[in-house]
Amino acid sequence: MVQYMQARLDASFAALSDATRRGVLERLARSNASITDLAEKFGMTLTGMKKHVDVLEQSGLVTTEKVGRVRTCKLGPRRLGAETEWLERYRRLWDARFDELDKVVEELKRKEKVDGRKRRE
Amino acid sequence: MVQYMQARLDASFAALSDATRRGVLERLARSNASITDLAEKFGMTLTGMKKHVDVLEQSGLVTTEKVGRVRTCKLGPRRLGAETEWLERYRRLWDARFDELDKVVEELKRKEKVDGRKRRE
Repeated sequence: MVQYMQARLDASFAALSDATRRGVLERLARSNASITDLAEKFGMTLTGMKKHVDVLEQSGLVTTEKVGRVRTCKLGPRRLGAETEWLERYRRLWDARFDELDKVVEELKRKEKVDGRKRRE
Repeated sequence: MVQYMQARLDASFAALSDATRRGVLERLARSNASITDLAEKFGMTLTGMKKHVDVLEQSGLVTTEKVGRVRTCKLGPRRLGAETEWLERYRRLWDARFDELDKVVEELKRKEKVDGRKRRE
């Protein structure tokens, strides 16, 4: 289960690591679109866009349906909940870590002050 | 500026697309660690771990400092704010898109009902 989750996070962060693919997701959030529409909008070849759509489809972020010669792309069922949770947890850890470091620095400063006073005495 | 932001998002999502690298970030949120510590914890070779740390360092998520023969890794200054914002915006778009589709389905059902009534009359 944990491994499945990790593999899913791997796949979705990899899918998100490209500006065009993020753009495609934002575009599909407005309405469904064919590969041809998407290739035109992003100034790419059909082959190039198809590769991006394949990555998005494999990660479950997009689903496609072929009717005749037209492949229509739509947003997949994944709302990126686990990915958002990971980021939020990381930010909490990050905050805790830097709060802790701040405390260490404060403690060092306080000791420095006490030592300085002692040296002057 | 937009391109710079996009390149940063590309780099950080790519850095996050690997379970070991996410694990390293979580580990470093507890305390700094050497490449050797990290390699041991994740059961990897030093060379393998060094590659992961390089990716994290290039994306600004980790900083390293070499003193003598030991390279210490610590969390970088990036709190993944832009990445979290992108995901949150996507989730809002996703919700809006599916709310809209729900409305279309409701509207179709309503029409179906009216038509059904008309047919029966």
